[in-house]
Amino acid sequence: MSLDDASTKPHERMQAALALDLEATGALIRERMASEHAPRIPEVTAHLVEAGGKRIRPMLTLAAARLCGYEGEDHRKLAATVEFIHTATLLHDDVVDESSKRRGRPTANLLWDNKSSVLVGDYLFARAFQLMVETQNLRVLDILSNAAATIAEGEVLQLTAAMNLATTEAIYLQVIRGKTAALFEAACEVGGIIAGQPDPVVSALARYGDGLGVAFQMADDLLDWGGASGEIGKNTGDDFRERKLTLPVIRAVAKADAIERAFWVRTIEKGDQQDGDLDQAMEILRRHGALEETRAEAYRHAAEARAALAEVPDHALTGMMSDLADYVVARLT
Amino acid sequence: MSLDDASTKPHERMQAALALDLEATGALIRERMASEHAPRIPEVTAHLVEAGGKRIRPMLTLAAARLCGYEGEDHRKLAATVEFIHTATLLHDDVVDESSKRRGRPTANLLWDNKSSVLVGDYLFARAFQLMVETQNLRVLDILSNAAATIAEGEVLQLTAAMNLATTEAIYLQVIRGKTAALFEAACEVGGIIAGQPDPVVSALARYGDGLGVAFQMADDLLDWGGASGEIGKNTGDDFRERKLTLPVIRAVAKADAIERAFWVRTIEKGDQQDGDLDQAMEILRRHGALEETRAEAYRHAAEARAALAEVPDHALTGMMSDLADYVVARLT
Repeated sequence: MSLDDASTKPHERMQAALALDLEATGALIRERMASEHAPRIPEVTAHLVEAGGKRIRPMLTLAAARLCGYEGEDHRKLAATVEFIHTATLLHDDVVDESSKRRGRPTANLLWDNKSSVLVGDYLFARAFQLMVETQNLRVLDILSNAAATIAEGEVLQLTAAMNLATTEAIYLQVIRGKTAALFEAACEVGGIIAGQPDPVVSALARYGDGLGVAFQMADDLLDWGGASGEIGKNTGDDFRERKLTLPVIRAVAKADAIERAFWVRTIEKGDQQDGDLDQAMEILRRHGALEETRAEAYRHAAEARAALAEVPDHALTGMMSDLADYVVARLT
Repeated sequence: MSLDDASTKPHERMQAALALDLEATGALIRERMASEHAPRIPEVTAHLVEAGGKRIRPMLTLAAARLCGYEGEDHRKLAATVEFIHTATLLHDDVVDESSKRRGRPTANLLWDNKSSVLVGDYLFARAFQLMVETQNLRVLDILSNAAATIAEGEVLQLTAAMNLATTEAIYLQVIRGKTAALFEAACEVGGIIAGQPDPVVSALARYGDGLGVAFQMADDLLDWGGASGEIGKNTGDDFRERKLTLPVIRAVAKADAIERAFWVRTIEKGDQQDGDLDQAMEILRRHGALEETRAEAYRHAAEARAALAEVPDHALTGMMSDLADYVVARLT
């Protein structure tokens, strides 16, 4: 793979540029995941941490620190912290969502059980906390503790928003910030802080992470409806079946006539879904341009992410981060 | 209630002596538990936080700080931190395995559901983390992050130790340190640190908390077997039915002959329990003096807790803490 090959995906170019840092971070993750007393812990986490995840979040921390000229090693501790927090939330999501597959493998709670998923997730949170305390940087601790609260609050909010047609776009944004963007934002921000950057740079990195995370999650939610073209594939419609209110539905509900509203009440609020309802839902979304509008929103947030990078030091990694913001929405065309 | 009345329970005298601090801590807990975005959070936690818990853990932090002459307010943040961590672990403990049956008190997850228990627990952990970061004291953060890891590790260890006759006394001690003593220890230790005490005092407070916590949990485990006299009451035998290896059984297994060993293998490892097995188990424990030995161990740890207080400043609260160490094992006579 050549770093100069424009056809290479941006996160793959970042992986190559940060290869040494990523390798050291991976070693740190394996070391801190181990438990002398409870050997089940690495058993439960190994299939998550090593299942070929793209490690986007730790890569953002490493990239933000390096493009700011950081020469130390604490950014690896923060990258491992961010990955541990992410893995812990996946474990806890597995319990609550009763989802059957994660990254193509059976979830931890099917291999083990709910209890292990909860407790091992707690262990990873604690390990994350220990790692960040080791950096002795109070601003970093402040940012990551606030991110942890936003994540948990967003997850609870998602529970109460599901099946509720009164869910507003503002609530949806809080949910996806908690689900995705808060950790992307913190991951970028702490990279700048550990590198000793001035406030405007740190703040620009935070805005990049937020824009990237919101765009990424909106794109994911749109793909669940088959993308902007609304083509039904075998992975389409999970959110509809789970009665989750994502942006396409929120936009369509806002424009619904009486008949459409009755349809949403029956399928989402009451959960009475029949054959053909998914096609019908898709038809309503297309009629109101809700899929196109969601794509436009995702592009807008990706553009904000790219724009924020103008205030960040110029570096090969900065260019790759800009390309990454393009890439997460390019899936939608 | 008079503070001079020797018949008053020591934790009630501590409650009276720390009334103002406890009230302010309670207000802080209610304030930080609230979520602007997710009103379900205080609904889930209210019945736990306000269900008449004795608040032993936050009281230890407040007492440790005050007896060291602390005059500030950060000890209340740490007391609230400790209570949040405790409440979060209770919520996560309540999560039920789909595979296993549970009896007993209504847990949070029956009142609400597994989802809320996991996510609201995570929210309280994050809030605890935010509160302690506000103290800006890196030593406090180090101690509490280590305690969080010990707690999670102990909980996982408890899962793997259950139903396993090879569980050693060393493993049992790690489990009860994780379950109880680690947070008692950290609660006392951070009180001394926030008060700016020298290392020998901080270390003595930590030893007090550890001894108190271990004695407390051993007493609890013994009471589950009806106390040192082994009298079967309506609350006796839960651990036996759940096939948990606590100290009385570990001691009895170590001395078992072939017939007794077959009994433990059948009832604990294989889970094949019949009418009369609890009486039979009790008979074996009595035969080997396992209940008496457990009581002696609990007393030994309580005595270590009291001894540690010799290196702590003399204060009315120090005397109450000493009495508290007596009290947690006095339940056993």
